[in-house]
Amino acid sequence: MSRLLDQINSPEDLRKLREDQLPTLAREIREEIIRTVSKNGGHLAPSLGVVELTIAIHYIYNTPRDRVIWDVGHQTYAHKLLTGRKDSFHTIRTKGGLSGFPKRAESPYDTFDTGHSSTSLSAGLGMSVGLELKEEDARVIAVIGDGSLTGGMAFEALNQGGEHEKNLTVILNDNEMSISQNVGALSSFLSRKMTTKSQVALRGGVKEFLQSFPGVGEKVIRVLQRSEGSFKAFITPGILFEALKWDYIGPIRGHRFDRLLEALRNSQNLKKPVVIHVLTTKGKGYEPAEENPTYYHGVGAGVIENGHDHVEVKAEPVKKAPTYTKVFGDYMVEAAGRNDRIVAITAAMPEGTGLHDFAEAFPKRFYDVGIAEQHAVTFAAGLAVEGFRPVVAIYSTFLQRAYDQVYHDVCLQQLPVLFALDRGGLVGEDGPTHHGVLDLSYLRALCHMTVMAPKDENELRRMLALGLIHDKPTAVRYPRGKGVGVPMDDPAEPVPYGKAELLREGGDVLILAVGSTVYPAQEAADLLDKDNIRAAVVNARFVKPLDENLILELAHKCPRILCVEENTILGGFGSAVTELLADKGPEKYRVRRLGIPDICVEHGTLPELRAQLGIDGPGIARAARRLIEGA
Amino acid sequence: MSRLLDQINSPEDLRKLREDQLPTLAREIREEIIRTVSKNGGHLAPSLGVVELTIAIHYIYNTPRDRVIWDVGHQTYAHKLLTGRKDSFHTIRTKGGLSGFPKRAESPYDTFDTGHSSTSLSAGLGMSVGLELKEEDARVIAVIGDGSLTGGMAFEALNQGGEHEKNLTVILNDNEMSISQNVGALSSFLSRKMTTKSQVALRGGVKEFLQSFPGVGEKVIRVLQRSEGSFKAFITPGILFEALKWDYIGPIRGHRFDRLLEALRNSQNLKKPVVIHVLTTKGKGYEPAEENPTYYHGVGAGVIENGHDHVEVKAEPVKKAPTYTKVFGDYMVEAAGRNDRIVAITAAMPEGTGLHDFAEAFPKRFYDVGIAEQHAVTFAAGLAVEGFRPVVAIYSTFLQRAYDQVYHDVCLQQLPVLFALDRGGLVGEDGPTHHGVLDLSYLRALCHMTVMAPKDENELRRMLALGLIHDKPTAVRYPRGKGVGVPMDDPAEPVPYGKAELLREGGDVLILAVGSTVYPAQEAADLLDKDNIRAAVVNARFVKPLDENLILELAHKCPRILCVEENTILGGFGSAVTELLADKGPEKYRVRRLGIPDICVEHGTLPELRAQLGIDGPGIARAARRLIEGA
Repeated sequence: MSRLLDQINSPEDLRKLREDQLPTLAREIREEIIRTVSKNGGHLAPSLGVVELTIAIHYIYNTPRDRVIWDVGHQTYAHKLLTGRKDSFHTIRTKGGLSGFPKRAESPYDTFDTGHSSTSLSAGLGMSVGLELKEEDARVIAVIGDGSLTGGMAFEALNQGGEHEKNLTVILNDNEMSISQNVGALSSFLSRKMTTKSQVALRGGVKEFLQSFPGVGEKVIRVLQRSEGSFKAFITPGILFEALKWDYIGPIRGHRFDRLLEALRNSQNLKKPVVIHVLTTKGKGYEPAEENPTYYHGVGAGVIENGHDHVEVKAEPVKKAPTYTKVFGDYMVEAAGRNDRIVAITAAMPEGTGLHDFAEAFPKRFYDVGIAEQHAVTFAAGLAVEGFRPVVAIYSTFLQRAYDQVYHDVCLQQLPVLFALDRGGLVGEDGPTHHGVLDLSYLRALCHMTVMAPKDENELRRMLALGLIHDKPTAVRYPRGKGVGVPMDDPAEPVPYGKAELLREGGDVLILAVGSTVYPAQEAADLLDKDNIRAAVVNARFVKPLDENLILELAHKCPRILCVEENTILGGFGSAVTELLADKGPEKYRVRRLGIPDICVEHGTLPELRAQLGIDGPGIARAARRLIEGA
Repeated sequence: MSRLLDQINSPEDLRKLREDQLPTLAREIREEIIRTVSKNGGHLAPSLGVVELTIAIHYIYNTPRDRVIWDVGHQTYAHKLLTGRKDSFHTIRTKGGLSGFPKRAESPYDTFDTGHSSTSLSAGLGMSVGLELKEEDARVIAVIGDGSLTGGMAFEALNQGGEHEKNLTVILNDNEMSISQNVGALSSFLSRKMTTKSQVALRGGVKEFLQSFPGVGEKVIRVLQRSEGSFKAFITPGILFEALKWDYIGPIRGHRFDRLLEALRNSQNLKKPVVIHVLTTKGKGYEPAEENPTYYHGVGAGVIENGHDHVEVKAEPVKKAPTYTKVFGDYMVEAAGRNDRIVAITAAMPEGTGLHDFAEAFPKRFYDVGIAEQHAVTFAAGLAVEGFRPVVAIYSTFLQRAYDQVYHDVCLQQLPVLFALDRGGLVGEDGPTHHGVLDLSYLRALCHMTVMAPKDENELRRMLALGLIHDKPTAVRYPRGKGVGVPMDDPAEPVPYGKAELLREGGDVLILAVGSTVYPAQEAADLLDKDNIRAAVVNARFVKPLDENLILELAHKCPRILCVEENTILGGFGSAVTELLADKGPEKYRVRRLGIPDICVEHGTLPELRAQLGIDGPGIARAARRLIEGA
């Protein structure tokens, strides 16, 4: 039997369907998503949660003339299936295939590239102003989750948007959580929807109640209504949005087509910004994901099998080693047991950063502040002022959100905040928006900051140990994925401050590597050894301060220096070494920087990307040979 | 007659005064502030607006045990006078003297260093969590303006704070404007206070009205009161804060001691976070400043004389040249007249960035988004997607707030947004929080970004012209203050993309300068000339992409290269040149980077700071001599 989905090559085809066919289409789309994610990995739960909503949006709005912006963008699998990409859908998140996020380069239906949270309202306002200036009659729809709404920039946009009579429809996709459990007053506020029924009853009840006193109640109602519309709002979640002068529709049951279509149709008549509050269930239609949406938020390939059984099958070669994330999480529990001044802070990533055990063990010293990186950093600064040792655990790419706070609130005051930057370097399948390839550059520019990157999971512990006793700001950045599988020191001795480690002597070429490139550098040295090329290998450990003495001493002995890092080579670790050599190096030397060149790296598996960029063992060996040959 | 102020060496002395003496003290403090600002320059209007509030805070709270955090911090002059610094107050904003902002290093009464906006709630929450963990019984008070409240991170903190039963008192200092006129829905929302009287009357009226129907009205009131306290809130500005679960007190008249003291006393009994909404008048007590608070927000030395007449007397040598700010503003008006796709965006700085004329000439293409840099950038990205040429005018130091948005929303999508970065480099008296000395480093690390800095005001126009036709992201950063006084090309031809300019030939040393250091480099060349040292001088223009051909060609001729910039030397312009030379330079060369070293530069006048750092003419000449001598 042919599927409805097979007939749909664009939303125009979708709009030819009868409303009663939409539930069937939704089922087919869910099956397709589960099948593909079980093979490629991906953001399962978010995409399953918005299948009906996605269908309804393309059914009602005239896409792509009407612009749909997907906040974060990890929920766009149904959107991709409906907008001409179902035949290439099986390539999603694979190298050269479809992106897991919206991409303007991929389709005219993708109107704005997303990846990080909370950008859609700002972009949507910009587009709506643009349309107005062009006198173009099209709508702008931003779909944003309740978690993303905790990000400050979403509020900044709500504030501006409420002032203007712009054509902007915000669909609040409220699944009662962002990536992990949502936090903050906003969340408990929205969750009043749990009593929606009773609220509606109450609202109706009050009105009825008042009306039951003819002459009297009517007057009260009129007085209340005159006072700026508050009567309507005062017991609904809309109060917040209406306080900021947005219209509000909802809450709407987000898996019921009749309700969704009606709400979207109604909103089209509004001339001012409106928030449509839609309730959805993350992982909808796939029972394990509904039950544990955090686990199924993003899954690796093979984690779900046949779309049904939950069997972990790893795509990458199985290593016994724990992930860096777990090593960090375990160390935090251990360290906090000894030192009651340690406080852990995450921005909506207790699972992703490995802090869930800490949260259980030390609930009073654990803070999940929501998707609010700026606040997280300055909140940590406040704790540091009171004598605590705050540890801000955050993905490298998301710390970009708090650059000013790291500098202005932490570095300038020289406060001992420790930044634990997970997913430093390439992240693989999530692609350009998520690669953490800038941190070494932007952090080392900051005065009073110490920047480290460990070669393996044992060194991660030792660097964290240093960060917890060093009396100024420190950052430790470590890669996504599993460690190297080395034995762990117990206890973890702090690495000596500012000291690099000479791993291997050799007079033909000096390889200075940092972080995730140290073991590949050793592998390169092995490869070179077979050709009788002797490479010295240094684990730099510190990007700031560099171990100047060791580096200069070795550079004098062997003035052919190759720097390797998983960071942009613009201003990164290799740049720091190049600066040092220029300032104080030998009379004559050659230095080369290997790392991420000045390009935007697309998605792919980590081994694929590292090989492509030449920062794996063979790539480093090739670069070393070129350097020796004087190329 | 001796002043009350003379008897006050700390808030303890203040607390010995009778309440009826406080107005006299307020008058004395205002006189002292006006006298000092007339000499040193400074943030006049903000400080005058909070004199009573500052007195009341130190009178009621037990400072410094109770922690007061001043958002932005430019309103702390009365605070400094009351906390042991009245004898050194005359040194404020002068080199080696008191800072114009709170400084922990300066006084135990300064609990958190501020400068940028919207940080105080986050820091306050952190401190209050710290106090709780230490079981220390002290209060935390954050004083924040209505403008700062439009910053997203303040909302992030409100969201977290509302969830916790933390001891945090937020004093909303509502002067109906931030630095310029406040914008956004929040502002018009708060300004409902204009009808406060009628609201209070209404609220009371409704209750009375209801109570006048015995048996009936009482029930209605109870029903309304049961619905989560909304009855109390639904017609006051507090609704927004109460929606986020904060208690709300206000609005309070902020220049009446009886009202202020009562509100602060009452708030002390609350066990949960509370917002006290205080209405103040910016510039209070100095008529010209009350009438034109934007002009008197921050004033240069000598702008007010004798504390009363408005006579402009410049502290720095008078130059005929217009400021870079004005040149930018004029050019924007000119360019927008020719190109209707140009849209200008500012984050609460229409005056500071020179866009007021543009705003008048093209109101539909001008957007002041409030203190919301993140939103400003992504809003611009949305406009660019629709085919517009958005220009984001922002101070260099504040762009740090939007680093992720510049990268994630503009660079990765290669959108043609032009960033006009005023106050790039040192800013002088505002000190470390405001120096814009990181931008060249953090911007050049971004793929697809072009980074320029003009040598003079005419080149600023030419770079803007290029930025408006270049089809990818561009940034032009220019210094605070007046231009060089050069004739202006009309029309302004775009500078040739990626091309530097050889200003002067010479074989002894090659000086590569960028932006504000180009004329000083010429001056240095003149000085060197007297000693028969011939310096080549290059105006680099582009930090990214470098003019590789010209630089390499000259470096081969003269391999003693001095790079000069008003930016950190870590990863900045000189670092880019050093990378280039390492990659492709001559066999043998010496390169030195002159700029801001790895320190936090304190406040002082621009000439003082530039001399101290050796980036003025004589300093550059000295560095060139050292380079030639091989030191």
